[in-house]
Amino acid sequence: MTSGKINVTVENIFPLIKKFLYSDHEIFLRELISNATDATLKLKHLTSIGEANVEYGNPVIEVKIDKENKKIHIIDQGLGMTKEEVEKYINQVAFSGAEEFLEKYKDSAKDAGIIGHFGLGFYSAFMVAEKVEIITKSYKNEPAAHWTCDGSPEYTLTESDKTDRGTEIILHIAEDSLEFLEEGKIRGLLVKYNKFMPVSIKFGTHTEGEGDDAVEVDTIINNPNPAWTKQPSELKEEDYTNFYRELYPMQFEEPLFNIHLNVDYPFNLTGILYFPKLSADLQMQKDKIQLYQNQVYVTDNVEGIVPEFLTMLKGVIDSPDIPLNVSRSYLQADGNVKKISNYITRKVADKMKSLFNENRADFESKWNDIKIVLEYGMLSEPKFYEKSGAFALYPTVDGKYYTFEELKEAIKENQTDKDGNLVILYASNKDTQHSYIASAQEKGYQVLLLDSPIVSHLIQKLEADNEKISFARVDADHVSNLIKKEENTISKLSEDEQKNLQEIIELNVPKGKYTVQLEAMDSTDEPFVITQPEFMRRMKEMSASGGGGMFGMGNMPEMYNLVVNTNHELASKILNNSDKEAQESNIKQAMDLAKLAQGLLKGEELTAFVKRNFSQLK
Amino acid sequence: MTSGKINVTVENIFPLIKKFLYSDHEIFLRELISNATDATLKLKHLTSIGEANVEYGNPVIEVKIDKENKKIHIIDQGLGMTKEEVEKYINQVAFSGAEEFLEKYKDSAKDAGIIGHFGLGFYSAFMVAEKVEIITKSYKNEPAAHWTCDGSPEYTLTESDKTDRGTEIILHIAEDSLEFLEEGKIRGLLVKYNKFMPVSIKFGTHTEGEGDDAVEVDTIINNPNPAWTKQPSELKEEDYTNFYRELYPMQFEEPLFNIHLNVDYPFNLTGILYFPKLSADLQMQKDKIQLYQNQVYVTDNVEGIVPEFLTMLKGVIDSPDIPLNVSRSYLQADGNVKKISNYITRKVADKMKSLFNENRADFESKWNDIKIVLEYGMLSEPKFYEKSGAFALYPTVDGKYYTFEELKEAIKENQTDKDGNLVILYASNKDTQHSYIASAQEKGYQVLLLDSPIVSHLIQKLEADNEKISFARVDADHVSNLIKKEENTISKLSEDEQKNLQEIIELNVPKGKYTVQLEAMDSTDEPFVITQPEFMRRMKEMSASGGGGMFGMGNMPEMYNLVVNTNHELASKILNNSDKEAQESNIKQAMDLAKLAQGLLKGEELTAFVKRNFSQLK
Repeated sequence: MTSGKINVTVENIFPLIKKFLYSDHEIFLRELISNATDATLKLKHLTSIGEANVEYGNPVIEVKIDKENKKIHIIDQGLGMTKEEVEKYINQVAFSGAEEFLEKYKDSAKDAGIIGHFGLGFYSAFMVAEKVEIITKSYKNEPAAHWTCDGSPEYTLTESDKTDRGTEIILHIAEDSLEFLEEGKIRGLLVKYNKFMPVSIKFGTHTEGEGDDAVEVDTIINNPNPAWTKQPSELKEEDYTNFYRELYPMQFEEPLFNIHLNVDYPFNLTGILYFPKLSADLQMQKDKIQLYQNQVYVTDNVEGIVPEFLTMLKGVIDSPDIPLNVSRSYLQADGNVKKISNYITRKVADKMKSLFNENRADFESKWNDIKIVLEYGMLSEPKFYEKSGAFALYPTVDGKYYTFEELKEAIKENQTDKDGNLVILYASNKDTQHSYIASAQEKGYQVLLLDSPIVSHLIQKLEADNEKISFARVDADHVSNLIKKEENTISKLSEDEQKNLQEIIELNVPKGKYTVQLEAMDSTDEPFVITQPEFMRRMKEMSASGGGGMFGMGNMPEMYNLVVNTNHELASKILNNSDKEAQESNIKQAMDLAKLAQGLLKGEELTAFVKRNFSQLK
Repeated sequence: MTSGKINVTVENIFPLIKKFLYSDHEIFLRELISNATDATLKLKHLTSIGEANVEYGNPVIEVKIDKENKKIHIIDQGLGMTKEEVEKYINQVAFSGAEEFLEKYKDSAKDAGIIGHFGLGFYSAFMVAEKVEIITKSYKNEPAAHWTCDGSPEYTLTESDKTDRGTEIILHIAEDSLEFLEEGKIRGLLVKYNKFMPVSIKFGTHTEGEGDDAVEVDTIINNPNPAWTKQPSELKEEDYTNFYRELYPMQFEEPLFNIHLNVDYPFNLTGILYFPKLSADLQMQKDKIQLYQNQVYVTDNVEGIVPEFLTMLKGVIDSPDIPLNVSRSYLQADGNVKKISNYITRKVADKMKSLFNENRADFESKWNDIKIVLEYGMLSEPKFYEKSGAFALYPTVDGKYYTFEELKEAIKENQTDKDGNLVILYASNKDTQHSYIASAQEKGYQVLLLDSPIVSHLIQKLEADNEKISFARVDADHVSNLIKKEENTISKLSEDEQKNLQEIIELNVPKGKYTVQLEAMDSTDEPFVITQPEFMRRMKEMSASGGGGMFGMGNMPEMYNLVVNTNHELASKILNNSDKEAQESNIKQAMDLAKLAQGLLKGEELTAFVKRNFSQLK
């Protein structure tokens, strides 16, 4: 038996680092600025505990492009390195100085905000540079060092005459990466990754003032103290709004609400979530929740960390501890990550409840913009559904907002049917269902306006969870049948007359598509009404909006009933008209009007209707 | 000055490999099966050139799950390794045996299909396994070897009594990766990554036959010879359709066309693209073009490789040479990748042209399903636009299909206006614009049906590129003004009468929204017509469908003209009606009918119209 240690050589690893370290080469800038930030924060920590006798001052990290010579410079004023430290930390791939620092100062440095972990970040420079130089002067009283490596992987190390404390990295950009010499490109990367990093970053200068007062000042591209790093008690409402602007400068709408997150267990996690005004096209939402680790931007893919129904929100989450380099399915199964996700869900529910209680009118005015998120949460998170009773609203077509309990109370008198079922009426569109809404309102019924794309699923759930409650869309039946009461209106027509009328009408109405149904209604109700039974329509909708419904229902043809009011005088007129032609044209016109009210008169039929009616103008 | 070599230690690198090698841990299976495939193909090559005196036979790679003992076995019948080879290839991280093999046999092995590059794939096992064993027997007459490593990174290496040629990898799955012991999970991964790999892969068994004839047979999960690896001349139309089924088993629609790609320069690239029937919701397209390298699935993100307008297609592309570990922006700027993209564009244009020429009726019948892709190509790729004259179709509302040249020829007689401009009329919806279409057809005009979401951009481009051609939607003006001819219909009304009529009508029509416009039309034309000027509407549409149009146009209110036909008898009737109430109600009814024809009568107005007209039934 042989035993030994697996071997690794730098000749094999170096080409891999260059090609594979990150699939996105632009990451190099984030990594080098993270190193510069760590060097600065370490110095801050050492001065604060008295281990470094230098003035910390107001350090800045500077990024400079030298396009002519194809170089990028990254210069910090941090603790720097001695020649010995360069040999120790740089010449050994993947030896992390940050880990060592945190180990050494573990009691005092826990909250120092140090980013580095794996000591690989520096080597990402070789993804874009054919040669890298480090010129560095330690805060200790030792000469500066100058390290150069062309990625061969041979290096040279000499003394340097640098006198300022800190480290300068010089990248000699490779031919296939010249895009990184463009000012716009670097500015874009700095804004993307480093916008909220904790040390000021200078990139270029700009002019302030005018004429003789004009002065060139440094352009600082970041805000080292973003709102989420502060305590909620330090922040006013406008601070949250201003931070939203900082996050999304191209977003002109104000956010509706914000939720400040702050949790220590099982992970340290801070952040601010915003409910945006949702635009009509949900797919077009480009600004997503951004995930940071110690103020460094990592990704805007928060799948698995934030519950799915909240991924439509905006804002930031910062957690140094969320394991990101594991598969998404592992992340979703991980108990600690699940706890974070549950914490966020609970915080959102609590915030909704308190907003509702503090200023109900304001909450109602925003309901339309937030309902999709909340309704989706009610469907997908049982815990959220439980809590939603305290804030979920059911608006009526005329702008009243009920909680579910209030709604039941308000309608129980008038909308309980003869079997004791409470019938909740709703419309999905005030315009196209206007005539049906008007009929229901004439009976004193409340009509909800439920127009979210997933509302059929929510209705199904509410019916399943509440006994003796059913929902019906206003055009599911004619108004007297929507909520069946004891009283029966007596038909003016005899049974024979009804049979006769039914035959006459069926002759003039396309079979298969419409089922003719004679009903004794009030004489003032419409003579012809087209209805669409609730169950079939809802199943079709559920099937169309993904999942639920019954298999294949989405492909069923639309089915309608033509309800004829036997007590309307038109019924008698049709029945007793001896002029066949006039009888037919009356049925035709009444049918066309009923179709118009249900949005079914279109194309050639509509053109013919318009032409016919123009010709009848006198 | 010091100089030296950058150092790397396995203690530093190993934890990185485990955490960082791939962001998705499931990749381990693809990597290990790629290694097994390489071992098999190398043996095939050595037997074919006479360097290995063993029978190649019909080798299979077997994947087995031992859930009880938390193990996965991957067993190949390839060339195996001697103890010395294990020490050389395994104990040194990132030393690629495949690269060495290709170097050694570079003349003969170029097309052997060997996958490995960087010698890191094997170590991906440690992303999911706490301990890994290799039991391997070389095709050479030497004892088998047994290597074990718990990732510490210490290993042991002993002899083994394995007698079959080949390599068995045993993964002792770690606690955080137990999901990979689920049969369904592994089957899913094999289907995702290895479905078309060139060596048969066995995973479990299944029963074939029934009763006494029932036999247990191996389940082979892959097709080692997928269609794209064959020559077009070897394939019939049904082979392409069958391969589409193989690629997308859940896709029930047949593809419309296929395009076989085969290019050697600047990259070797093969593949088959399919035009699918596009479903209504473009966002819902889940099945995308799959990118393979040597029959190993890599990704379904082909952005930058396939021109954007073709990303709605389906199919596969296989190229061992496309650099994937560079940033997308670099990929898009890379000259060679750009050439590939241009090649694909050209192939698609050529295929469309030949399909059009070979069977025009068939091509016409499919136009509706492919037009969005092709029209988007015409807008985004100048080369494709140039070639599109040979196949791009312009369908009319009654189902004729013209090329642009044919269209110009067909309409030039009747649709050239008095200034010599050719006016192309179109509708965007046969239903809602029916009455306008009917009026245009009565004049003998051809009306195109242009209903793609991006068509306003295409129209804008066609107008810019063709002199003296303009497009007008059928409701852009009343029919006599759409194409202005020399003749002038004389108004039956005097100027005073016209002025009077205009005043009466303006009193009854909401100001601001409608501009009243009196026109002397044929007495048989409609009395009231609502039109919407072309320019404003098109700019609004372009602005809504992203880009183009004029800034801010999307938010302009809709503006309409109300055209009143002074030669219709209704005009005289209104003018001469002394009963004010009857006059008003006539205008009201005519206005409502004109709104109905333009789809503008809605909600409360529509309900009132229906009620009023019900009450007028006799």
